Amino acid sequence: MSALEPTRALARYLVQARGEDLPAAVRHEAARALLNFMGCAIGASRHATTGRALAAVREFAGPPQATVLGRGERLDCLNAALVNGISAHVLDFDDTHAQAIHPSAPVWPALLACSEWRRVSGPELLNAFVLAVEAEERVGLSVFPEHYQAGWHITGTAGMFGAAAGVGRLLRLDEQRMAWALGIAATQASGLQEMFGSDCKSLHPGRAAQGGMTAALLAAAGFTSSERAIEAPRGFGHVLSTKFDPAVITEGLGSRYELLSNMYKPYACGLVVHAAIDGCIELSREHGLAPDAIEAVELTVSPLVPRLTGNPAPRTGLEGKFSVFHAVAAAMIHGAAGEAQFNDACVNDARVVALRARVSLKVDERIGRTEARVAIRTRDGRVFLAHVPHALGTLARPMSERDLEDKFRALAADVLPEPRIRNLIDLCWTVEKLDDAGALARAAAAPAPAPA
Amino acid sequence: MSALEPTRALARYLVQARGEDLPAAVRHEAARALLNFMGCAIGASRHATTGRALAAVREFAGPPQATVLGRGERLDCLNAALVNGISAHVLDFDDTHAQAIHPSAPVWPALLACSEWRRVSGPELLNAFVLAVEAEERVGLSVFPEHYQAGWHITGTAGMFGAAAGVGRLLRLDEQRMAWALGIAATQASGLQEMFGSDCKSLHPGRAAQGGMTAALLAAAGFTSSERAIEAPRGFGHVLSTKFDPAVITEGLGSRYELLSNMYKPYACGLVVHAAIDGCIELSREHGLAPDAIEAVELTVSPLVPRLTGNPAPRTGLEGKFSVFHAVAAAMIHGAAGEAQFNDACVNDARVVALRARVSLKVDERIGRTEARVAIRTRDGRVFLAHVPHALGTLARPMSERDLEDKFRALAADVLPEPRIRNLIDLCWTVEKLDDAGALARAAAAPAPAPA
Repeated sequence: MSALEPTRALARYLVQARGEDLPAAVRHEAARALLNFMGCAIGASRHATTGRALAAVREFAGPPQATVLGRGERLDCLNAALVNGISAHVLDFDDTHAQAIHPSAPVWPALLACSEWRRVSGPELLNAFVLAVEAEERVGLSVFPEHYQAGWHITGTAGMFGAAAGVGRLLRLDEQRMAWALGIAATQASGLQEMFGSDCKSLHPGRAAQGGMTAALLAAAGFTSSERAIEAPRGFGHVLSTKFDPAVITEGLGSRYELLSNMYKPYACGLVVHAAIDGCIELSREHGLAPDAIEAVELTVSPLVPRLTGNPAPRTGLEGKFSVFHAVAAAMIHGAAGEAQFNDACVNDARVVALRARVSLKVDERIGRTEARVAIRTRDGRVFLAHVPHALGTLARPMSERDLEDKFRALAADVLPEPRIRNLIDLCWTVEKLDDAGALARAAAAPAPAPA
Repeated sequence: MSALEPTRALARYLVQARGEDLPAAVRHEAARALLNFMGCAIGASRHATTGRALAAVREFAGPPQATVLGRGERLDCLNAALVNGISAHVLDFDDTHAQAIHPSAPVWPALLACSEWRRVSGPELLNAFVLAVEAEERVGLSVFPEHYQAGWHITGTAGMFGAAAGVGRLLRLDEQRMAWALGIAATQASGLQEMFGSDCKSLHPGRAAQGGMTAALLAAAGFTSSERAIEAPRGFGHVLSTKFDPAVITEGLGSRYELLSNMYKPYACGLVVHAAIDGCIELSREHGLAPDAIEAVELTVSPLVPRLTGNPAPRTGLEGKFSVFHAVAAAMIHGAAGEAQFNDACVNDARVVALRARVSLKVDERIGRTEARVAIRTRDGRVFLAHVPHALGTLARPMSERDLEDKFRALAADVLPEPRIRNLIDLCWTVEKLDDAGALARAAAAPAPAPA
């Protein structure tokens, strides 16, 4: 396979790889990614960003082929992929590959839309997802980190390849057309980091899902592209990056799976804060520490923590995500650090404000990015210590199935009634048994909320 | 205005510029661009590339809001913009700015779709087009030529800004939302030169039209973006080019119009061949030279001509476009060099093959890119000489209104019946008098051809 150029080698692999050859651990990771994705998309289904996107495209949408996850509307597949790709990313709570790229948000929206439109079995869906992740991660890593450092939002650029590959597989493209699909994806790849902090950040995976699916549909209709779109001198690798390593794309295809490097966030904020939150929740729970009983919380953290999350007095939910002081205070009071702990109300809650004033930081160069030490002193003079070598959700200490279910429940609680939540969790864990994978997205539909 | 940063300055200009302040020459040039665009899109309405794109998206399209030019189908605005942007460029016969960018193909499809969906007057449409061209040309030229040399297809990347600006103006966005529309365009900008030679080359203006219109619609719905998308360190100018000159965007806004540098092609092949075609047609016509009477044709041309179009024995219409020998032979026999002279039949026509064998080239470094000398010797020993200092269609020697009408007629002849052709030409010339500019696209609809 390594004798082939990367676009061709990748196309061949995507067309030939058999679902029955996937290791069980990879298939299971795909189900975990699915549950996590569903929670993120459903949890943001009524977010203002999602609402704006839906309002903008609704009037132009085609037949009701696919569900807007967590909502009552149905749109044509391409518009549903766009909106669901936006909602999946808007909370910044979706999965992350250990090196780069949020793999699920650009891919699942396209695959799920496709599954409602054409008959797709559960095993076919899982296989397409695994292959899509291989495509996007390998293309992304082939230009990483220079591509990212140049200012590209790699989830948008590389994600386009994932959606094209996954939908192309569901459409059973031949090798020639799969190569075209990858090329049509390459020539649509876009997304600037300058958009971080605006609605456009989540537009990127939305556009990747929509554009990648369009690429596969165009290729299926015989729409031609360069067949060397990734490696050619004026192709993706060289135009969008100063580094391009084709071996990253071709080596170990079918034996090494990038999906096994996938991580899920237990907390709705940046990864660098997670270990401190872990330690604080652990000590509070274990010793039943009431917030009022706490005199001081001292965190020993990596230098990244104050640099990225050093805001001592956030005023909004979004600012709260960039305040380690808020994050640990809210986590100790609520025993969690989900979306509910990063809304405006929680950030301005007097109990949280009071506790976060008693949190202090000590920086230690030797502390890793996902590590923390926590010392809590109570008013009665006791001191409790915790060392978190690896935050929950890292590869060294992955979220358990139960953790993922709890996260899903918290995200879906205000959107879906309990029986539907239970049902959707079951469907995700048993996706391999589904004859009709369209059941997944249909089960994620919710009636529109009553007008306020 | 120059005190403002370019994204803000451009947004303000796009929102405030008044149609009544446009010089008459600029308004007239917009009408010329419209007629030329219409001919290209209609002429390619049954091209295989257009057909593939339409086949791919049709099943997902929304309400029949907008015409697929030259066809019977109606699609939602966004899909119509995509398909019409593709057809407008697929023949490589659309307009060209003197320095860079094909300005019409990414812009008119979005504006015309919008005009069928919302009530837009002729003057509003013209003004929006002029502003759209300013936006795309100025953004494009601010990074030119380094951006192009890096491998970007500038018609795709810069064109996205044009469609966003033009539709944004028709939607009457305020300055804030116009800045967001430009940002949403920036973060979708894409299109690789590697795609030249495949269907994807024309996908670029199609995606620009569709993506730019989407940008304006999202911004209208309050979807936010960076407000420094063009000039920020991780914005369009710096990420997609090693050169970025903000002054190109802001200087002379409202007093200098890029549209006045617009050029139209009389012949359906690369510009470097045009002067030779001019000279050959001129001598053949003037002296009534029958092909059989011609013993030899000697062309004195720039070194670019053999380099780009040196194929002495083309076998297909597409190869014919890269053969100066074919181009002048066909032009002498048919008195024209339109699409009909670059199809497979004409390239393999025995008379054309015989004549092109008697064409020879002489290279002269001093000859310009759009210049040629022609010497024709007849079998009876006469010699006719022509010097073409500037090819027809260049800024020094623009196509006349009559030339543009003839080009339109030739392109539309197989698609629209004569009364509709006449009507559409009239509508283009009198666009400023239209209360409802939607009449333009509606007049370009054609019944589906009878099945072969």
